[in-house]
Amino acid sequence: MSDSATKTKPTRRDLLRERLIDAAEAAIAARGLSGLKAREIAAQAGCALGAIYTAFEDLDELILRVNSRTLAQLETSLATPTEGAKKGELARLAFAYLRYARENEQRWRALFEHRLPPEKPLPHWYAQDRDRLFGLLEAPLAELLPRQESPLRRQRARTLFSAVHGVVLLGLEEKLAPTPASTLESQLSDFIDIVSRGMTRGE
Amino acid sequence: MSDSATKTKPTRRDLLRERLIDAAEAAIAARGLSGLKAREIAAQAGCALGAIYTAFEDLDELILRVNSRTLAQLETSLATPTEGAKKGELARLAFAYLRYARENEQRWRALFEHRLPPEKPLPHWYAQDRDRLFGLLEAPLAELLPRQESPLRRQRARTLFSAVHGVVLLGLEEKLAPTPASTLESQLSDFIDIVSRGMTRGE
Repeated sequence: MSDSATKTKPTRRDLLRERLIDAAEAAIAARGLSGLKAREIAAQAGCALGAIYTAFEDLDELILRVNSRTLAQLETSLATPTEGAKKGELARLAFAYLRYARENEQRWRALFEHRLPPEKPLPHWYAQDRDRLFGLLEAPLAELLPRQESPLRRQRARTLFSAVHGVVLLGLEEKLAPTPASTLESQLSDFIDIVSRGMTRGE
Repeated sequence: MSDSATKTKPTRRDLLRERLIDAAEAAIAARGLSGLKAREIAAQAGCALGAIYTAFEDLDELILRVNSRTLAQLETSLATPTEGAKKGELARLAFAYLRYARENEQRWRALFEHRLPPEKPLPHWYAQDRDRLFGLLEAPLAELLPRQESPLRRQRARTLFSAVHGVVLLGLEEKLAPTPASTLESQLSDFIDIVSRGMTRGE
């Protein structure tokens, strides 16, 4: 989860980083990204405000470290034995995603709400964490679409993830209509049926 | 667009409301929802800060009035002669949505980023504006799925809109991978193909 893990004894700086990530993680989980105040995080971790900026490049890095833990949590939630079910596996992933989002709404939102300034590239370690999550989604697509080339499959995994994300996001926010839990579940299930049929019959 | 339009001469309050909506609209288009400062809006509209709260219930109402104009703009962008093309019509709508989002990114975002406090119901006039937009999406579905009952069709129109929204949102933000315009367009086109096949063959 952290690229600072080494085989040697953690340094004081490593320990401070962990405490700061813990504090920021708790703040985001409780109050969302907009509830993150550097001063409170520092107080919680028992250090001076300025110490955040010696432990991390900046506040964006601290947030990405929390988001990286969220990605790992999400990955664990999605990665359950697959039992080789094909269409069933896509539905299982979509429903596991909905459940994770519901149960961890603030930290799930923070994954998408945090934006780096345009001039700042996404750190390599974060991109790797994110891409590992997508590896998980490509497996059931590989079963459904054995003849499709891997770059296309990779792109499609991202398309379908985005589509499911949109249904979950606007459904949980009830942006388009009042959306009780049962309606959202029936939308998701209908959606996975459509997509599964559309993919297997079109190849 | 505004429920204050009547056949009688507009009152001074009506004129103030229009000026304030114009100012808020320009601020959101330029700097997004987070760039909206009540003090600047009032200065722009040539009134005291407190006048905002005599002209509108609160700042949320002012934002929803701007969002209502955005919904009307979006509706105009999506509503082009359909020529009876079936699958083609879904693709046309999806691409028109992508184009609108790209060209009006800040005000498009504001539609989704603005959230009312949980205890506050969405005003009836806003829900009507939003539902009118969905009427537009139900028409091509009615052609594709003539036998489907209308409440189910209405739900599906929302599901598909949410899915397309997710693909556009995460694609424009490049949240999941570097996403050049051509990649996003090919994702959207692949997605509409899958969905069209899945819907017509499954009924």
